Amino acid sequence: MKRGTYVLVAIATTALAAAFMVPGAGHGDQEVFVTTIPSGYRDWKLVSVAHEEGNLNDIRAILGNDIAVNAYREGRLPFPDGAVIARIAWTYVPSEENNKVFGRAQSFVAGPPPEWYLQFMVKDSKKYAATGGWGYAQFDKDGRPAPEAKMKTCYPCHDPIKSRDYVFTKYTP
Amino acid sequence: MKRGTYVLVAIATTALAAAFMVPGAGHGDQEVFVTTIPSGYRDWKLVSVAHEEGNLNDIRAILGNDIAVNAYREGRLPFPDGAVIARIAWTYVPSEENNKVFGRAQSFVAGPPPEWYLQFMVKDSKKYAATGGWGYAQFDKDGRPAPEAKMKTCYPCHDPIKSRDYVFTKYTP
Repeated sequence: MKRGTYVLVAIATTALAAAFMVPGAGHGDQEVFVTTIPSGYRDWKLVSVAHEEGNLNDIRAILGNDIAVNAYREGRLPFPDGAVIARIAWTYVPSEENNKVFGRAQSFVAGPPPEWYLQFMVKDSKKYAATGGWGYAQFDKDGRPAPEAKMKTCYPCHDPIKSRDYVFTKYTP
Repeated sequence: MKRGTYVLVAIATTALAAAFMVPGAGHGDQEVFVTTIPSGYRDWKLVSVAHEEGNLNDIRAILGNDIAVNAYREGRLPFPDGAVIARIAWTYVPSEENNKVFGRAQSFVAGPPPEWYLQFMVKDSKKYAATGGWGYAQFDKDGRPAPEAKMKTCYPCHDPIKSRDYVFTKYTP
């Protein structure tokens, strides 16, 4: 090799080593979170619905982008990179209007957004390797991302569902 | 007029009169129902979610085709012809898996489809003039349309919501 080539190889090696050491690059023990709301999520297809009692007291829809919903429908696990799953929560409120028509108190509908309105899981097996290949996100009703301390609670909670690639919600046709 | 023209006019008039007398053509007091599942409904955008207690005991999603969802988002009433709204119901079941992670019994999810799995409202202000411009449909979990006696209960139940073009569900962003 010529001297010039040696220099280039040395630079490349240093750059590569540096890349693996950059804090926040998502490697090693570094936790990385999603801090931007994925665009167009409200137009995505429905995965399923749920109701949480207790402190949450919400009614929720789980949506997925095309990559996520196709994987769900094909029963493909783990989810491929690019899959994004959205959870929208609404306050759980009785519907007086519906109850009047039904003739009894039985109807609960989606009310205004609660404090923690939106959650997302973004699949990127390299970027989010430290948290099972998923980047987690949570946004309040004004679109502000949750503080890091709150974000850190996502992954440990999803860990018991490792056998379904950390995703709680099952697709319901 | 020549004799031939008289004959043509007479035939045309008779045909026109006959058209208005055909049973099932959707005019007058004739009730007409939707008996085919609108194709692709499971890919439609989400309008909102709800939970019904009592005999129904379901958790449900309301979806709309693009015409319906655009009208909802623009606050456009009445809904334009071509709008279709779908209601999918699932049995309301506790999730032991979720409860274990939450550390308390609080989580309810969508289970297998109930007997009356699907409902639709199809807007065609001419065809369904007798029932507020909407054609109603109900299908069981095997895709069979409900008997006519059951279909006849749809419109009277929606009538109190005439001010919102007979549509119960409000869009939740």
